[in-house]
Amino acid sequence: MQSLQHQKTEQVQQILQEAKIDCWLIWVRETSLIKDPVLPLIYDGDLVWPSALLYTRSGERVAIVGNFDAGGVPEGLFDRVIPYNEGISETLVAELTRIDPASIAINESLDDVAADGLTAGMKALLLQVLSGTPYVSRLVSASPVIGRLRGRKTPQEIERIEQAVGITESIFAELHEFLVVGQTELAIHRFVHERMEAHNVGDAWQANHNPAVDAGPNKAFGHLGPTETRTKEGQLLHLDFGVRFDGYCSDLQRMFFFGPPTRIPTEVAAAFDAVRGAIAAAADRVRPGALGHQVDSVARRFLSERGYAPFQHALGHQIGRAAHDGGTLLGPLWERYGDAPNGILESGNVFTLELYATTKHYGQVSLEEDIVVTGDGCRFLSHPQQKLLCVQRG
Amino acid sequence: MQSLQHQKTEQVQQILQEAKIDCWLIWVRETSLIKDPVLPLIYDGDLVWPSALLYTRSGERVAIVGNFDAGGVPEGLFDRVIPYNEGISETLVAELTRIDPASIAINESLDDVAADGLTAGMKALLLQVLSGTPYVSRLVSASPVIGRLRGRKTPQEIERIEQAVGITESIFAELHEFLVVGQTELAIHRFVHERMEAHNVGDAWQANHNPAVDAGPNKAFGHLGPTETRTKEGQLLHLDFGVRFDGYCSDLQRMFFFGPPTRIPTEVAAAFDAVRGAIAAAADRVRPGALGHQVDSVARRFLSERGYAPFQHALGHQIGRAAHDGGTLLGPLWERYGDAPNGILESGNVFTLELYATTKHYGQVSLEEDIVVTGDGCRFLSHPQQKLLCVQRG
Repeated sequence: MQSLQHQKTEQVQQILQEAKIDCWLIWVRETSLIKDPVLPLIYDGDLVWPSALLYTRSGERVAIVGNFDAGGVPEGLFDRVIPYNEGISETLVAELTRIDPASIAINESLDDVAADGLTAGMKALLLQVLSGTPYVSRLVSASPVIGRLRGRKTPQEIERIEQAVGITESIFAELHEFLVVGQTELAIHRFVHERMEAHNVGDAWQANHNPAVDAGPNKAFGHLGPTETRTKEGQLLHLDFGVRFDGYCSDLQRMFFFGPPTRIPTEVAAAFDAVRGAIAAAADRVRPGALGHQVDSVARRFLSERGYAPFQHALGHQIGRAAHDGGTLLGPLWERYGDAPNGILESGNVFTLELYATTKHYGQVSLEEDIVVTGDGCRFLSHPQQKLLCVQRG
Repeated sequence: MQSLQHQKTEQVQQILQEAKIDCWLIWVRETSLIKDPVLPLIYDGDLVWPSALLYTRSGERVAIVGNFDAGGVPEGLFDRVIPYNEGISETLVAELTRIDPASIAINESLDDVAADGLTAGMKALLLQVLSGTPYVSRLVSASPVIGRLRGRKTPQEIERIEQAVGITESIFAELHEFLVVGQTELAIHRFVHERMEAHNVGDAWQANHNPAVDAGPNKAFGHLGPTETRTKEGQLLHLDFGVRFDGYCSDLQRMFFFGPPTRIPTEVAAAFDAVRGAIAAAADRVRPGALGHQVDSVARRFLSERGYAPFQHALGHQIGRAAHDGGTLLGPLWERYGDAPNGILESGNVFTLELYATTKHYGQVSLEEDIVVTGDGCRFLSHPQQKLLCVQRG
C-alpha cells in the first residue's frame, strides 16, 4: 500500500486544478524546530536548509533541498529532487522561470492556522529571492489548497480517526468502571493516562490538559488542567479527551453523574437533552455544500429556543493529524474565527460537534461527538452519548 | 525551585534593556498545530486563540489570551492575565497604547529560525490590528532578544544538556560492547533505540535519522536513515546521535573502526587526527566576544592546511531545547547561513563543534563534540573522542 504521504500527494494536482492555482510552493527550513503543519501530510521527514517543494497544476512535483537533505527524500514523492550547496536562490528562480506559473500559492493565511505555516522571515526571504522576477507579484494564499487537502480525508485517514475514536470510547468505558465518589480530578487524569499507555496511544493535545477533567459545578470548562477537586454524590463529572492513534486524533466529551438515574436533577436532565438534541439537529443539517456557520447556527438556535445562554465557542472544528485541523469551521461569524465559518463542507471532512448548556446549580453540561461528512449527510464516528453515565459506587 | 520557564522569564527584562527594545510581543495562536519555537522557553502550555504575551523593558509582563485559555496560564509568569471573548484587537491596542513602546519586537527573522516563529498570516493580522496606530511603524525583529534568551543557558539548562550528553556517551559505550563485524546499519539503529528506551530519553531529532548510522565508505553523511549496509572488517562506522533529556538535547558524532588499532589505515589515522585537531584548535579560539565565523575559520584553516577539502556545513550550532537551537552560528559567511555567523559568543552558550575530513578509500571521518562557553574560554560537556573506537569481534 502507498504511504499516506503518497496518497495525499496524489490529491494535490486535482485540488490545484479546482482552485485554479498553477503552482504550490512549500517553503520551509529547520522543520524540527518549527514545522509547517501541512508538511507531515505530504512529506514524512525533516528538512534542515531552506527547501522548496513545488507542485504544479500539470502534475509536476519538484523538491529543491540542501545537499545533506537530498538523500532523505522518500522515493516517489517527487519527479525530481534538486540538491543545492551554498544557496537555493538561483535554482528556485530557474525552476519557477521554467514552470512560469501565473499564480504561486504560499502557506500564508489570516484565518486558517493550518494554512499559515510560512513564517514571516521565510516570507521576507522569499520576496528577496524573487525580487526582480515577475513571480513576486504572483503570490496567493494556499489556504484553498490546504483546506481541501487536509479536509478531504482519504479512506485510510478516516479509518485511523475512527480507530482513535474507538479507543477513546473504550477508555471512557474503562473509566466508567473505575469511577467512585470522592476521587480527585488528578487521580482520574492519571487513570486515563495509564489506560492510554495500555492502549499504546498518544495525546491529541497537551498531556496535562488531556483529558480536561471537571468535577462538580465550580470550574468553567476550558483548557484547564485537573485539580485536587473531588467527585461528589449528586454532582456531575465532565471529560474532554482525545487520543492520537497512528498520527490521527479523536476529540470527545462525556458526562458522568454520581448517583442513580432517578436522582438526576431535572435541570441537569433538561440541559443534557438540550445539548444532545442540539448535536442531533446540527448533524441533520450537515451535508456537502452547506456552509460552516449554517450548521453552527442550527445548534445555537436549538439551544437558545430552550432558554440557554449561547455557548462561547464554535460548534465544531475539523480533526485529523491535529485535534484542531484547520479549514472550514462550524462556527459563528465572530472576529476571532475570521473567514473559516464561511467554508463549504465537503464529503470526507471530519468534524467535531460540541457544545454546552449551563445549569443553575450543577455547572455546565457539555458533550462532543465526531462525524464524517458523507455524500448526502454525515455519519457519526463516535456513538453519541444518549444519557448521563451514572456512577453509584462510593 | 522555580520552573525553567520562570527562570527564563526572569532573563527577559535584562535582555530587553541590553537590546534597547521597549516591548517584546509574542503573538501566537493554536500552538499545538504550529508552535513558535521560543514559546516552550517561557510558557509551558498551549494557547488556542490569538494570544499576545507582552514583556516590557521596565519589567512588566502581560498576557492577553482567550477566555478558555486564561485559567491555564501558570502562576507567576505574568503580572496580569487579561482574558477576552470575541476578539483580541481592542484589548491589545489598549495595552500597547498604555505602554506606548518606542519599539515592539516581534518574532520575525531572515536568518535565525529560532527567532522566526511568527507566521506570515499572523503578521498580516497584527498589521491589521495595529493599523491606524503609531505602533505599526515601531515593529522590529526580536532576533537580538531570542538569540540571547535561548543562548544564555541558565545553570539548570546547562546541567540538563550535560546530563543528555552523559547519557549519549553511555549509550555509545554500550554500543561499543554490542558491535561486531557484519551488523546492518538498521540493527545498530535498533540497538541504540532500545538503549534510549532503557535510559528513558527521547530523540534530539527525527527518530528514523537518529542516530545517523553510516557503515563503510559509500554513503555521504547527512540526514539519512540507516540501511541494510553491513559493518565490515577494516572499515569505519560513523554515528551522529543526540538524545533529549528533560527537554534538552545532546548532539555527538563518534567513529568506530573494525579491526585492531594496528590495522588502522594511515590515511584514516591522518584524517582522524586532522578532525580531532581542528576541533581542539577551534575550541581554543572560543571565548566570549569572539564572532561565530572566526571560530569556524580556525577549524577550516586547520583542515585545509593539511590538504583536506572544506567541510560543507557550519562548524557548530547551538544546542538546547532544540538540536539546532538557533542564534549565533559557528559557520562560514555563506548565503544560506545569512547573518548568523556574525553573532557574538556569550558565556553560557552551548555549541557543537563538528566537522569531517574525506579519505580516498574509507569515506568521511567525522566527529562532533559539545562545549559550553565560559567566562574566558570554553568547557567540553562531552569527552572528546581521542582515538578510533576499535571493534575486534566478528
